[in-house]
Amino acid sequence: MLRLDEIARLVGGKLDGPPDLVITGAAPVDQAGPGDITFAAEKRYFEAARTSAAACVIVPEDAPELERPTIRVASPRLAWAQVLEALAPKPQHPVGIHESAVVAEDARIGKNVSIQANVVVGPRAVIGDGVVLCPGVFVGADCVIGEGSLLYPNVTVMDRVTIGKSVIIHAGAVIGSDGFGYVTVNGTHRKVPHIGTVLIEDNVEIGANVTVDRGVCGATRIGRGTKIDNLVQIGHNVEIGEDCLVVAMSGIAGSARIGNRVTLAGQSGVAGHLTVGDGCVVAARGLVARDLAPNSFVSGFPARPHRENMRVIAATHKLPEALESLAALKRQLTQLQERLERLEEDLPAPGELR
Amino acid sequence: MLRLDEIARLVGGKLDGPPDLVITGAAPVDQAGPGDITFAAEKRYFEAARTSAAACVIVPEDAPELERPTIRVASPRLAWAQVLEALAPKPQHPVGIHESAVVAEDARIGKNVSIQANVVVGPRAVIGDGVVLCPGVFVGADCVIGEGSLLYPNVTVMDRVTIGKSVIIHAGAVIGSDGFGYVTVNGTHRKVPHIGTVLIEDNVEIGANVTVDRGVCGATRIGRGTKIDNLVQIGHNVEIGEDCLVVAMSGIAGSARIGNRVTLAGQSGVAGHLTVGDGCVVAARGLVARDLAPNSFVSGFPARPHRENMRVIAATHKLPEALESLAALKRQLTQLQERLERLEEDLPAPGELR
Amino acid sequence: MLRLDEIARLVGGKLDGPPDLVITGAAPVDQAGPGDITFAAEKRYFEAARTSAAACVIVPEDAPELERPTIRVASPRLAWAQVLEALAPKPQHPVGIHESAVVAEDARIGKNVSIQANVVVGPRAVIGDGVVLCPGVFVGADCVIGEGSLLYPNVTVMDRVTIGKSVIIHAGAVIGSDGFGYVTVNGTHRKVPHIGTVLIEDNVEIGANVTVDRGVCGATRIGRGTKIDNLVQIGHNVEIGEDCLVVAMSGIAGSARIGNRVTLAGQSGVAGHLTVGDGCVVAARGLVARDLAPNSFVSGFPARPHRENMRVIAATHKLPEALESLAALKRQLTQLQERLERLEEDLPAPGELR
Repeated sequence: MLRLDEIARLVGGKLDGPPDLVITGAAPVDQAGPGDITFAAEKRYFEAARTSAAACVIVPEDAPELERPTIRVASPRLAWAQVLEALAPKPQHPVGIHESAVVAEDARIGKNVSIQANVVVGPRAVIGDGVVLCPGVFVGADCVIGEGSLLYPNVTVMDRVTIGKSVIIHAGAVIGSDGFGYVTVNGTHRKVPHIGTVLIEDNVEIGANVTVDRGVCGATRIGRGTKIDNLVQIGHNVEIGEDCLVVAMSGIAGSARIGNRVTLAGQSGVAGHLTVGDGCVVAARGLVARDLAPNSFVSGFPARPHRENMRVIAATHKLPEALESLAALKRQLTQLQERLERLEEDLPAPGELR
Repeated sequence: MLRLDEIARLVGGKLDGPPDLVITGAAPVDQAGPGDITFAAEKRYFEAARTSAAACVIVPEDAPELERPTIRVASPRLAWAQVLEALAPKPQHPVGIHESAVVAEDARIGKNVSIQANVVVGPRAVIGDGVVLCPGVFVGADCVIGEGSLLYPNVTVMDRVTIGKSVIIHAGAVIGSDGFGYVTVNGTHRKVPHIGTVLIEDNVEIGANVTVDRGVCGATRIGRGTKIDNLVQIGHNVEIGEDCLVVAMSGIAGSARIGNRVTLAGQSGVAGHLTVGDGCVVAARGLVARDLAPNSFVSGFPARPHRENMRVIAATHKLPEALESLAALKRQLTQLQERLERLEEDLPAPGELR
Repeated sequence: MLRLDEIARLVGGKLDGPPDLVITGAAPVDQAGPGDITFAAEKRYFEAARTSAAACVIVPEDAPELERPTIRVASPRLAWAQVLEALAPKPQHPVGIHESAVVAEDARIGKNVSIQANVVVGPRAVIGDGVVLCPGVFVGADCVIGEGSLLYPNVTVMDRVTIGKSVIIHAGAVIGSDGFGYVTVNGTHRKVPHIGTVLIEDNVEIGANVTVDRGVCGATRIGRGTKIDNLVQIGHNVEIGEDCLVVAMSGIAGSARIGNRVTLAGQSGVAGHLTVGDGCVVAARGLVARDLAPNSFVSGFPARPHRENMRVIAATHKLPEALESLAALKRQLTQLQERLERLEEDLPAPGELR
């Protein structure tokens, strides 16, 4: 619960409304009730904002007068995130090691950690200050978990993985499984041992049931600030840069290198050993099958420049008619040809006339 | 083990065969042995049914005489489900709280629950009568699990999620992970807290390793009787209606609204913020990129009416030949043009002749 | 740590270099340092091998003189796997049953097993000699786990599943969940009980967060030596032959039959009830929608012979221009037709001239 003046101060905004009104929740502009705060980041939401039942609407500084309580800010979306942070229920992560947790004697445990029920921490693992390991988490031998990281229930971190600071890993994710590598000898597949590791840098977030394979040798690396959605697969020795967004159900095959600030939209894919340049965007379901120059925007299978791909898709929709048209043209041409032949026959030879 | 007359009574069918024959198993018509019962729901299976080694075949009421033991019923598929229920091994779910389970003191536990080894139940959670929580299940703070629901091993239910009655959740599923929401400020992604929840209604079934994200605010909702297959991703604030079928590896992006009785076939997808009307069917691998009117049947990328999409696919297969044909036509036309030009030159001017 | 002469002996190769040089690690040819061994399996890597900082390079027997330490072998890739095996850190799997494990009294436990923290083993389960069950593994009632198999953390094996010898199952995988089967009665979906099982043969490897459904009746079967990557879905009653490779995020729908030595590349799919012959290859993202003859190589949606599919994709890229070309042709033809008509009119009737 927050008063409107507290919220205005929190987001650095200008309040036009009753400062002592108490806000108890947050909701989208069309679903908000009288105790809620909401936001309208763009012009198209202003009309809904005007008539919303919300107690107050966060709007851009230059929004028109809406004749209702508002808070004006430079970035309504940022303010919205700040308000949600303030309103969010605070999860209870009791400091200490739960009696059911199994922590190796030679693991090094930081201050103010919360190692919860049924957690297992392997030999020589290093758990940083303020780390939270929720129930059922497994942290293997020689792992390092950086300060302030939060691992949700049933996450598995295999041996020798290094995780940075303030990393969030959602439930069921598996970090450091063996990659898919075999040598085929006389038709049977012999496992290539994966003696490498995974390196997850600071401020990374990894979604539920994601899988990140370890390197054959060397590391699979996920760069600082990169965010990975649910059910994503990251192959062995992949390198992902900083501040990327990898949306749900995408897959990155082995040894691919993804630059900084890359977006892979939902259900997309990157083939092995490719390089995707900084700032690239791969649209939903796109499958990258060759290197991409920085700032490419691609889509389709195989992925190509998005505008070209859209042009091709639009063209294919006209294809059945075009094929009919082509057949008609063929018939027409044959007729013309016949008429021309008749003409040629009928026409007197040049000499005949003169 | 069941006698044939017991089975006939169970399925409300008419037995033509030895009433006291004992059935020990069930199998498909082509794999059944002498102790098995099987079924033949449609005409095309009748010949196999006639010669099947099965002890008895469940057939439609109007099936021809097959000269072997049969049970005739209105719906062989329904009867088959009933027989399998009767023959299914009964899993042992010991009533009570296993000594290794960690249940918050202020959790409210119903009657006849089975809280098995290494289960964790958080503060203020409400566990309904007859609920089964298999080993390794995590139920967070303030969750509600309705009467008779069954959570298989290693399922994670995050804080404040509400699950209805008679819900089945298969192993490894994660319900209530944070959605994928960020505000990008100066190139870095700041997390939008997800203070909403997930609401799963009665009789829903959720497959293994499925992920269902909680709402930003408000709830992600899965309607009564909807069935979700393995490895499906449901984004934040998605609303799915009643009696839907969402087949394996499909993904529904944030805030999409799926109507009632919708089928999303395997590996399909629905983009964010769209509305899919009641009764729609999206074929396997279809990617819905715009709103769908009720009862649409779509396929392809982006998904379009199925017949159109099939026509386009068939047409693309003719495309390489069509391009050759087009090039040939161009050449032919050029030749015709040349011949026509020669004719025009040769032809005496109109006045010349008369 | 291994000396070069030990490595040469291990891989059956011919060493050209200092026999007592100590190798401490392994790395790709372009990343290797002075303590590392590396390999160059094909000609295109020889130049990099020549200048690599690695202590030694494993090369084919017929490689040219590289003027640096080498080990010559028949198969560098096989030798590489052998070297990695030798260099791999040995995981510690303490023999015995951890005090926090919950093992049914009537389970049969072999010799030298490692049943680790928080493992649950159900009634009548049979755990073979040398089996390793990592923390959080669940093995249901009546399961059989063959000699030497290794189940990583948080793997779930549901009741009555049989797993062969030397099988590896990565973290979070679920074996034996119910398949997706319902009878729809008056618009609601009634569950078809799955009373069948899963049979995983010897030397199979299954990736992280994979899901394998049990049969309705009978078994879902994965043949000897088949390797399955992360986040793969195997439907009920699927049969996969021996020595197959199923790459990440692929899905095989119910009752499909996959032959021996089949490769399904990443994000591919096989529709239900189909037969994929021995030796087939389905390219990445391919969706098999009809039976495939042995040794087919297919790609695309729906999957077709790969060369044809590539031809069609190349042709679609020319389609926008082809449509313009078609329209131009149409205009040209109309003009020709008009000119021809004028000619026909101008031309004296045949009789008129003679």
